[in-house]
Amino acid sequence: MQTYLDCLPCFLSQALKVARMTTEDERVHREIMDRVMGQLSKLPFELSPPEIAQNVYSIIKKITRNDDPYREAKKEQNELAVKLYPEFKKRIAESVDPLFFALKLAIAGNIIDLGIRKDIADIKGEILSTFDAPLKVNHYAEFRQDIENSAMILYLGDNAGEIVFDKILIEEIRKIKESKVYFVVRGFPIINDVTLEDAELVGMEEVAEVISNGFDAPGTILSKSSPEVLELFSAADMIIAKGQGNYESLSNEEKNIYFFLKAKCFVVAKDLGVEEGDTLLKKAKHSPKGSFFHPGGGTSNVGVHS
Amino acid sequence: MQTYLDCLPCFLSQALKVARMTTEDERVHREIMDRVMGQLSKLPFELSPPEIAQNVYSIIKKITRNDDPYREAKKEQNELAVKLYPEFKKRIAESVDPLFFALKLAIAGNIIDLGIRKDIADIKGEILSTFDAPLKVNHYAEFRQDIENSAMILYLGDNAGEIVFDKILIEEIRKIKESKVYFVVRGFPIINDVTLEDAELVGMEEVAEVISNGFDAPGTILSKSSPEVLELFSAADMIIAKGQGNYESLSNEEKNIYFFLKAKCFVVAKDLGVEEGDTLLKKAKHSPKGSFFHPGGGTSNVGVHS
Repeated sequence: MQTYLDCLPCFLSQALKVARMTTEDERVHREIMDRVMGQLSKLPFELSPPEIAQNVYSIIKKITRNDDPYREAKKEQNELAVKLYPEFKKRIAESVDPLFFALKLAIAGNIIDLGIRKDIADIKGEILSTFDAPLKVNHYAEFRQDIENSAMILYLGDNAGEIVFDKILIEEIRKIKESKVYFVVRGFPIINDVTLEDAELVGMEEVAEVISNGFDAPGTILSKSSPEVLELFSAADMIIAKGQGNYESLSNEEKNIYFFLKAKCFVVAKDLGVEEGDTLLKKAKHSPKGSFFHPGGGTSNVGVHS
Repeated sequence: MQTYLDCLPCFLSQALKVARMTTEDERVHREIMDRVMGQLSKLPFELSPPEIAQNVYSIIKKITRNDDPYREAKKEQNELAVKLYPEFKKRIAESVDPLFFALKLAIAGNIIDLGIRKDIADIKGEILSTFDAPLKVNHYAEFRQDIENSAMILYLGDNAGEIVFDKILIEEIRKIKESKVYFVVRGFPIINDVTLEDAELVGMEEVAEVISNGFDAPGTILSKSSPEVLELFSAADMIIAKGQGNYESLSNEEKNIYFFLKAKCFVVAKDLGVEEGDTLLKKAKHSPKGSFFHPGGGTSNVGVHS
């Protein structure tokens, strides 16, 4: 997805928020805003929003010399989600279709996004309310079939807190088929996105191999990804891409990608053809038809579904 | 009121909106946004938001060569308000205190502000709903007393449409005391603010002497005002300042000003110490105590009220 002019006010709002989180010095806030506006006026808008965001946040990091202003916030989000884990785990186990309920929870967990949201008064309440809403786009049937047929899955993580629910989903996926799952985190801190530290905190290594993508954008920018991630991206039978950032950066890729997200702003909602606030389990529009078929579990280029 | 960093995203949103109203050429939209960001990064924030807005809109005017993109919108707003005039006029006449109801209507009419609001789905419904809400700050007792004591009133207009309700209020004011009222409009088109054309359309000259302030900011910038307006500003017994723009540009003046407005954004609400969406009839905080007293209707510097 390209960056739209409508994203500019949002970048400025985010920059101001982070500036204020980092220091009380209003001259620094002003310096950040001026530098960010200067930079935004030069960037090509063919770049995706996460690429622009990487530029914006790198200015803030340089000026404030604080490369992880969301460190404490992320810790709190993870701890809260860990507390919710037993209850949600039980709900899923008791549900008619645990995979479906786990994926809905993984999407609902995506609301924990300090990059856009102003406040998290009651994460649990918001998660439950999002959890209860029907998916606006629901490619679950194909998703489940692909899960059954996949030997290797690339799971692109998004935010702290939410990662606890990602783990639950991977547990449910591996109950259906013991596929090899790679869980990708951001290479360096960016907003409240997951890094190796968060993956360790929630014990992600128990269910997946955790790898870093090698850079600090709030999305998956293939041109900046590590060779390892690129190889896995190419070889994976299916890719689960969590959150807006991963959608924004991969929406045009011709791969078997399932986007799990809540459309948190009207720009992304418009790009998706849904309303702001809608939740989606959406197969990539350029997903190659019949990209693979595994009668015995192997990978092939001949497919029968989608 | 100074400009806050929080105003920057809002200026960009407004610029984009006007850019799109003026042309469908996305390269022009981008050029406008880039130039606006460049300009914003250079302006001192001691300037009030209307002064910054004047700069922003002048860039748009230059690039698009359209000095009145809101022309049609203003016409529609005026026509709609003129249609509502008989009904509201009747409601006011039948009310217990026509002056109070007329001023509430004049404040409610202030919601017609395309500079900030995104859509006007049902102006009448919104006006009625604002009309019914209690004033968060209500200096009506002092206002009424000042009306009774004023020989000369300066009335600073704000938006098209709303000007119809300004006229009703001036009619009610002059029923209480036949004071001389000057109605000030912007010198040149700016957003949907009133100019001489709007005043003529609604027949403002029937109840007040209409004068132009000589410039095109969405507020009253004294340093740019015509000598005539400055003289009236200095000599007036009281000043009625409509809308956010006039509040933002005059909030620190030591004059007997009554601000009529709805706090349409959180920045102005915070500056006023109220919540976003609240409506106010607020006497200026630096209003000179006992600025005048008219036992017989004249003007003096000795006062008994406020």
